[in-house]
Amino acid sequence: METPWDHRFAQRTQRMASSVIRELLKLTENPEIISFAGGLPAPDVFPVDEFRSACDVVLSEVGAQALQYSTTEGYLPLREMIARHTARYGIKVTPDNIMITSGSQQALDLIGKVFINRGDQILVEEPTYLGALQAWNAYGAEYVTVSMDDDGMITEELEAALRTGPKFIYVLPNFQNPTGVTLSLERRHKLIELADRYGVPIIEDDPYGQLRYEGEHLPSVVSLDSQFRENGDLEYRGNVIYLSTFSKTLAPGLRLAWVVAPPEVIRKLVQAKQGADLNTAAFTQMVAYEVARGGFLDRHIWTIRRVYGERRNIMLEAMDQHFPSSVRWTHPKGGLFLWGIMPEFLNATEVFKVAVQKKVAFVPGQSFFARGGGLNTMRLNFSNASPEMIRTGIARLGETLKEMIDSHN
Amino acid sequence: METPWDHRFAQRTQRMASSVIRELLKLTENPEIISFAGGLPAPDVFPVDEFRSACDVVLSEVGAQALQYSTTEGYLPLREMIARHTARYGIKVTPDNIMITSGSQQALDLIGKVFINRGDQILVEEPTYLGALQAWNAYGAEYVTVSMDDDGMITEELEAALRTGPKFIYVLPNFQNPTGVTLSLERRHKLIELADRYGVPIIEDDPYGQLRYEGEHLPSVVSLDSQFRENGDLEYRGNVIYLSTFSKTLAPGLRLAWVVAPPEVIRKLVQAKQGADLNTAAFTQMVAYEVARGGFLDRHIWTIRRVYGERRNIMLEAMDQHFPSSVRWTHPKGGLFLWGIMPEFLNATEVFKVAVQKKVAFVPGQSFFARGGGLNTMRLNFSNASPEMIRTGIARLGETLKEMIDSHN
Repeated sequence: METPWDHRFAQRTQRMASSVIRELLKLTENPEIISFAGGLPAPDVFPVDEFRSACDVVLSEVGAQALQYSTTEGYLPLREMIARHTARYGIKVTPDNIMITSGSQQALDLIGKVFINRGDQILVEEPTYLGALQAWNAYGAEYVTVSMDDDGMITEELEAALRTGPKFIYVLPNFQNPTGVTLSLERRHKLIELADRYGVPIIEDDPYGQLRYEGEHLPSVVSLDSQFRENGDLEYRGNVIYLSTFSKTLAPGLRLAWVVAPPEVIRKLVQAKQGADLNTAAFTQMVAYEVARGGFLDRHIWTIRRVYGERRNIMLEAMDQHFPSSVRWTHPKGGLFLWGIMPEFLNATEVFKVAVQKKVAFVPGQSFFARGGGLNTMRLNFSNASPEMIRTGIARLGETLKEMIDSHN
Repeated sequence: METPWDHRFAQRTQRMASSVIRELLKLTENPEIISFAGGLPAPDVFPVDEFRSACDVVLSEVGAQALQYSTTEGYLPLREMIARHTARYGIKVTPDNIMITSGSQQALDLIGKVFINRGDQILVEEPTYLGALQAWNAYGAEYVTVSMDDDGMITEELEAALRTGPKFIYVLPNFQNPTGVTLSLERRHKLIELADRYGVPIIEDDPYGQLRYEGEHLPSVVSLDSQFRENGDLEYRGNVIYLSTFSKTLAPGLRLAWVVAPPEVIRKLVQAKQGADLNTAAFTQMVAYEVARGGFLDRHIWTIRRVYGERRNIMLEAMDQHFPSSVRWTHPKGGLFLWGIMPEFLNATEVFKVAVQKKVAFVPGQSFFARGGGLNTMRLNFSNASPEMIRTGIARLGETLKEMIDSHN
């Protein structure tokens, strides 16, 4: 049916094509397919009982407040809790540095709205988080990319990229989406040093930082930046905007995340959020606060680490067993994802089509490349499927890969 | 503290100044001030007990689904319920015509993202809903305005405005925010006829349509548009995008609203929403569905009508008693707001400052004018304050007005 809206879409919609990854999420609705495609947490670790109690407490004690409009900045006790939590990781901030968003995706969108003029260059890792590209494409962003290896962004390439004058650097230092790779401590220091020299600020996106299954926690870029200039004084300098979320530690269905930024940036983000959705639901903020306070979140994260760490191990073992030797993959120390690199003659979208016939799914990697490429790459999620499904699904995928490689040779 | 972000804000932020109205909401936090400023529903009619039961049911029965990521379009049973509800008002639509948004404010933002190129003219009522201007300013919208009288948008002015080639018409036909005025049936027909002749589509924003306290329900523009072309056949033609919300009938704290649009528009809005916040919380959607299904919402709306209708009457009586005769105001048949017009020599912002000293607040009307003006106007909310507070607050405001008018004369 033709309507008068059809020829009225804004130019920017041409860059807003529905992402492969989001469309693929729909496959998870077919229960016969074992999907490693989504970025879904495991529902079996959601603290459902704690949520029930919290809803009851919130609605019994402060129901009218929970169901009313609320401030755009977010629920103050939740922001205070986040400020305390942030301080534990070496950054001294106040609630004035914190805004609650409807998931980190909204933080990315509002950052685009507040900072990106059409044609601005944004410096991103290659590959990088697809959701950031989706958000920023709508504001006309262009990208300059820096390659990655097993220690994250290759900082030897960073200086040349900074010379192009990017608006900001976007980095996911811990268990990156999509690669699962972690930026080394040495490179974190180097990143800060170069960003400082070129006067380019940083956005640190850290949804998975607490989900480490082996090795020592590395200090966040924002905390290293605080120490770097002030010689041990942990004042927040404001060069780094830090994003994190409750989606991976409590539950994604709440759509609750937060931004740490200088107060002047928070003010602009608040203005942008007023126009975007007025405020994030007070009810979910108050329920999350009720669930998280009193130390439950700290205990719960140990459960998640145990479950996801085991699933990562099982996936890696199954890949060792079933994947052909010409396929390589990362060995993430945390997070939700690992990354596969197939022989160059294989196209991941073609592999995907065959894999779905065999009832297993993943995300072809090319969507994570801001400037194209990555046709032979794939992202696998290991948090959502049960151990048994991981073993079965990886066996199916290994078989798919072997058949396609054999038929090429 | 200066940071490298300070000189990196996008050009559009210059048009995103924090609105007076949102800043004024902060005044409601001072319990000594009687505020008619916000657009807040009355918390005493929130169905808190029903929400408690619904949270319990949802988390007990489908907790894992409620706390997981979900589809961008929204929870299917909720969309089906909205489709049935819409059909009752004479428009035959399917869930493919419906997207759930995080409040109507998000619908306005996504419409801006999907339709507005910098410099596009949008045809709006004068005055119009401030939140729409806030959302669309960020996309570089310009405005062409049509004046209003007690029957809504003056359609005699509409044809001249349509000749400027606006991208779409934005109209709030029922108990408009800010004026409280309702578009007459005759003018609804005229609006559709002219929009059709000029091929300009319409956005109908209807948050208050069910909150009528006197007179007969008027058919929505979207339903009249369906009937207009098809001679009694109620197929949705797609010329009108219709917005409504649960904020005024259930509770605003959920942030749940919906868009009715042609499937092709829904697809674009879904793409935009993927970049904006991935999805609206499944949990709140499922809880709202649980509360609303089985006819509770219909019964609850009768309670709201009774309470708000009484408050409107009390405010109007108090204004008759306390306001000086040189001030005029509207007599809304529903909704949350009425509109005052003071003598031209009074500036509402000046009146506001004096009124706050006397512990009463309202919204100066000028922010609702897309192209400036309205310095002597004010918006008063009658839904939020108790009858006693309304009487006291209006007496204080009447005193303020009398003093300022007397000191001028």
